[in-house]
Amino acid sequence: MNKRDLEVTYRDYITCLNNQDWMNLGQFVYDDVLHNGRHLGLDGYRAMLEADYEQIPDLHFNIELLAVDSPHVACRLRFNVTPKGSFLGLAVDGKKVTFCENAFYLFRDNKIQNVWSVIDKSSIEAQLD
Amino acid sequence: MNKRDLEVTYRDYITCLNNQDWMNLGQFVYDDVLHNGRHLGLDGYRAMLEADYEQIPDLHFNIELLAVDSPHVACRLRFNVTPKGSFLGLAVDGKKVTFCENAFYLFRDNKIQNVWSVIDKSSIEAQLD
Repeated sequence: MNKRDLEVTYRDYITCLNNQDWMNLGQFVYDDVLHNGRHLGLDGYRAMLEADYEQIPDLHFNIELLAVDSPHVACRLRFNVTPKGSFLGLAVDGKKVTFCENAFYLFRDNKIQNVWSVIDKSSIEAQLD
Repeated sequence: MNKRDLEVTYRDYITCLNNQDWMNLGQFVYDDVLHNGRHLGLDGYRAMLEADYEQIPDLHFNIELLAVDSPHVACRLRFNVTPKGSFLGLAVDGKKVTFCENAFYLFRDNKIQNVWSVIDKSSIEAQLD
């Protein structure tokens, strides 16, 4: 998959998430997808995202930095959101927080096969002090 | 800077860190470098790394994933180390922990000008339970 096509596919994937277009998630995510070492599969991946939106009703994925090196994509995503209740074990309780997630993706057959993602928990903690 | 040269430069930078070769850090790091939004400059960057080695005597940077998309490099680094005392606000106290750092770098004139890095604090917390 060439670099340009991979970037377009990744941006379309982020649009799919922001539209909560779960019917089309399978266009972007492999049936056997892994996420941070866990074998979620497409159904588990969709369930994870639906749970994210349940906990964070104003969830929106913003691409801040993108590095495309086929078959890998690396993206720094920025969020400015108000999670309900406990988030990552922190009592956010509806407070507006801004944080980033640095994520790596391995693509196979134009779809995400593996994700290694880290959320900047320390920055959220600092906003709750 | 072409992709191949940028990858070689980045790998040489990691070797420089692993050798604690602070005399040559300026070959890889810009005088006005920023790190997670803080203007450290080369001297502050070196001081940050020296403090890291002071706190983590067996610190070693292992490249797990690398995406090179000039002028950006994205790297997932893996650590298997024994920090002394408190680390990221966690009472690690000399316990061996394994964790990753997902980092993005912006290069300018063959040197790192900006770093946006996130350490997987949640995975360290899970190892201390």
